[in-house]
Amino acid sequence: MEAVLKTETAPAAGGRSLGIVETRKYTFAGPLLLESGEILGPVTLAYETYGKLNREKSNAILVLHALSGDAHAAGLHRGEKVPGWWDAMIGPGKPFDTDRYFVICSNVIGGCKGSTGPASVEPRTGKPYGTAFPFITIADMVLAQRHLIDFLAIDRLLCVAGGSMGGMQALQWVASYPERVRSAIPIATALKHSPQQIAFNEVIRQSIMADPAWRGGDYYETGQPEKGLSVARMIGHITFMSEKSMEEKFSRRLKNDRLGFDFGADFEVEGYLRYRGANFVKRFDANSYLYITKALDYFDLSGGRLIAGKGVDTRFLVLSFQSDWLYPSHQSQEIVRQLKRKRVDATYCELKSTWGHDAFLVELEGQTTLIRHFLERTYLGKENGNGNHR
Amino acid sequence: MEAVLKTETAPAAGGRSLGIVETRKYTFAGPLLLESGEILGPVTLAYETYGKLNREKSNAILVLHALSGDAHAAGLHRGEKVPGWWDAMIGPGKPFDTDRYFVICSNVIGGCKGSTGPASVEPRTGKPYGTAFPFITIADMVLAQRHLIDFLAIDRLLCVAGGSMGGMQALQWVASYPERVRSAIPIATALKHSPQQIAFNEVIRQSIMADPAWRGGDYYETGQPEKGLSVARMIGHITFMSEKSMEEKFSRRLKNDRLGFDFGADFEVEGYLRYRGANFVKRFDANSYLYITKALDYFDLSGGRLIAGKGVDTRFLVLSFQSDWLYPSHQSQEIVRQLKRKRVDATYCELKSTWGHDAFLVELEGQTTLIRHFLERTYLGKENGNGNHR
Repeated sequence: MEAVLKTETAPAAGGRSLGIVETRKYTFAGPLLLESGEILGPVTLAYETYGKLNREKSNAILVLHALSGDAHAAGLHRGEKVPGWWDAMIGPGKPFDTDRYFVICSNVIGGCKGSTGPASVEPRTGKPYGTAFPFITIADMVLAQRHLIDFLAIDRLLCVAGGSMGGMQALQWVASYPERVRSAIPIATALKHSPQQIAFNEVIRQSIMADPAWRGGDYYETGQPEKGLSVARMIGHITFMSEKSMEEKFSRRLKNDRLGFDFGADFEVEGYLRYRGANFVKRFDANSYLYITKALDYFDLSGGRLIAGKGVDTRFLVLSFQSDWLYPSHQSQEIVRQLKRKRVDATYCELKSTWGHDAFLVELEGQTTLIRHFLERTYLGKENGNGNHR
Repeated sequence: MEAVLKTETAPAAGGRSLGIVETRKYTFAGPLLLESGEILGPVTLAYETYGKLNREKSNAILVLHALSGDAHAAGLHRGEKVPGWWDAMIGPGKPFDTDRYFVICSNVIGGCKGSTGPASVEPRTGKPYGTAFPFITIADMVLAQRHLIDFLAIDRLLCVAGGSMGGMQALQWVASYPERVRSAIPIATALKHSPQQIAFNEVIRQSIMADPAWRGGDYYETGQPEKGLSVARMIGHITFMSEKSMEEKFSRRLKNDRLGFDFGADFEVEGYLRYRGANFVKRFDANSYLYITKALDYFDLSGGRLIAGKGVDTRFLVLSFQSDWLYPSHQSQEIVRQLKRKRVDATYCELKSTWGHDAFLVELEGQTTLIRHFLERTYLGKENGNGNHR
């Protein structure tokens, strides 16, 4: 396991913006046979693409998002000022260089960002699924994405890449369709959730379901379980940061000059969490949060399930971050251990950061160079560090 | 800073049970002038005592409990089978040896275990205080306890000792009344909450207050906000354990043989948290949880406030636990640093444990020997390791 601890910061990402982009939708009849044994169809996937697919169709990269992410990974939507969630990494001259690569970002089923999920209308009833939506797994998300990649007529992806739940999807792509993936970049992720990770998700779910406004998932006419969902997201945000990043960002600074001696937000950190919770309610569906956290908890590619067959020649770049205690580095190291055991080509790097799990979105310097070079070597058919061939 | 990392486990506590004990109550008119500027009175404190006060009144030890603890630290209540929360440490032949010492355990104001708190009847209205209860701080809790110690006619305590919030009270005793405390044993505690600790408490409070059954704190006739309080406690329990202790206790074991594909408890860890949450609702008042977590967040003896004056001769034994990420060792080390800066006699030990914050209640072997010897040396008037005098 080549553990490299980055102590210097690489130059910033650089590159240019993609400008205006649009989310598209791909709908197919299915039905998908899900891991639960249930079926889902028709299925819509929201996705975006950046750059051009080359004649050989050898430059396609599938980028995968985290829990509350969406298909809008880069560029700007018309009339909006905030770019996609991985804009620093995707664009002309950026690590996922759209002058060279064709980058696809697909939303997941079960979500609420344009793809089929619990808020979608169930064809049979003409009403939103709610909790009649079938349970989905990471493998089901990837199965749906494979239909999209088939539709785009791409036989083999140059790379699948993503952080957190995006990293799980990248791993699942290799597990499900190793012959269709030349390389994978799982970032700040795990082969399976530990009981601590399950525990946080369970409290998140209980918080949502404890809100009477949840109404067993049947709230689309009455309004979201705002309070429960807000508390759920506050829990999430604590786990995304680190003790140190919170200290740096908030310390014990007061919102006003003095302690309030009431149940208002005395400290800045309290105000921040309340703001984040309230904001999340406006942009994410409570049922999707329930379904997706279950998919995370069910995910388990340990015990040889990541690389089941022989002769898998997918190359890996595995990244983790020092202060990430939600997906600690030892979980990434376990991924690498599994790969090495199966003689799969893998490079591992633990990046220095105080940002906790948020690092995969904000700690760009370290990732930039590594990802740029890894993609180049894969695209140009070079193995890790030792010249040419393939 | 004498950091000793215990690698061997000391012999178990041993000793005999105290047998049947009773909680008593001490009520005084007050009113207490609280840190908020408000007043509280009359004030009742629930407390227990074990052993006998000697003629010189030099053998009294005040034991202080954590957030949801109570005055019942040791022995058995008539008709009950579960002993007090620190029974392994207090009794004849145990580290807090009741053949030698007179041990007092006092409940805190703001709580719901027999002392004046938000569930108590407000004399002015004849109804429970609810959120009309004044905000209290750790210093206010200690002020009330000082009245109890006055009532017991004890001029100087041999020791104040406790873990977590009990450790904060121990520190506050020294800060408020250094001349009345010969020694202190703060365990798994801090001079102040970090923003991460505040954040967890804030989410706990928001979870309670998000429950419509909370009714602004006015629920004593309608019933507790059970769901919100249960979720709050589940959050707490995650922070009390460590990643490793959860792995050892639960791993990814399923409650039933297979995944349920529903929102039931699939994994044992989920069942455990639900059980703990549901159980807590039966034994603790939601408003007390709100008030006490605020007191924890307000606590701040940093910046020289722990030892304000000169010539403080209180001796310290400071203990922390390796896997405790709620009150990490660096916070205990900061206590010791403050003490050393003021030339106060302090011994520090980081004990080996995988139990996380729960360690202060369950990791007995390491604490036993250290506490026993520290108390003996203090009682017999010996300084740390260097023979006689005082």
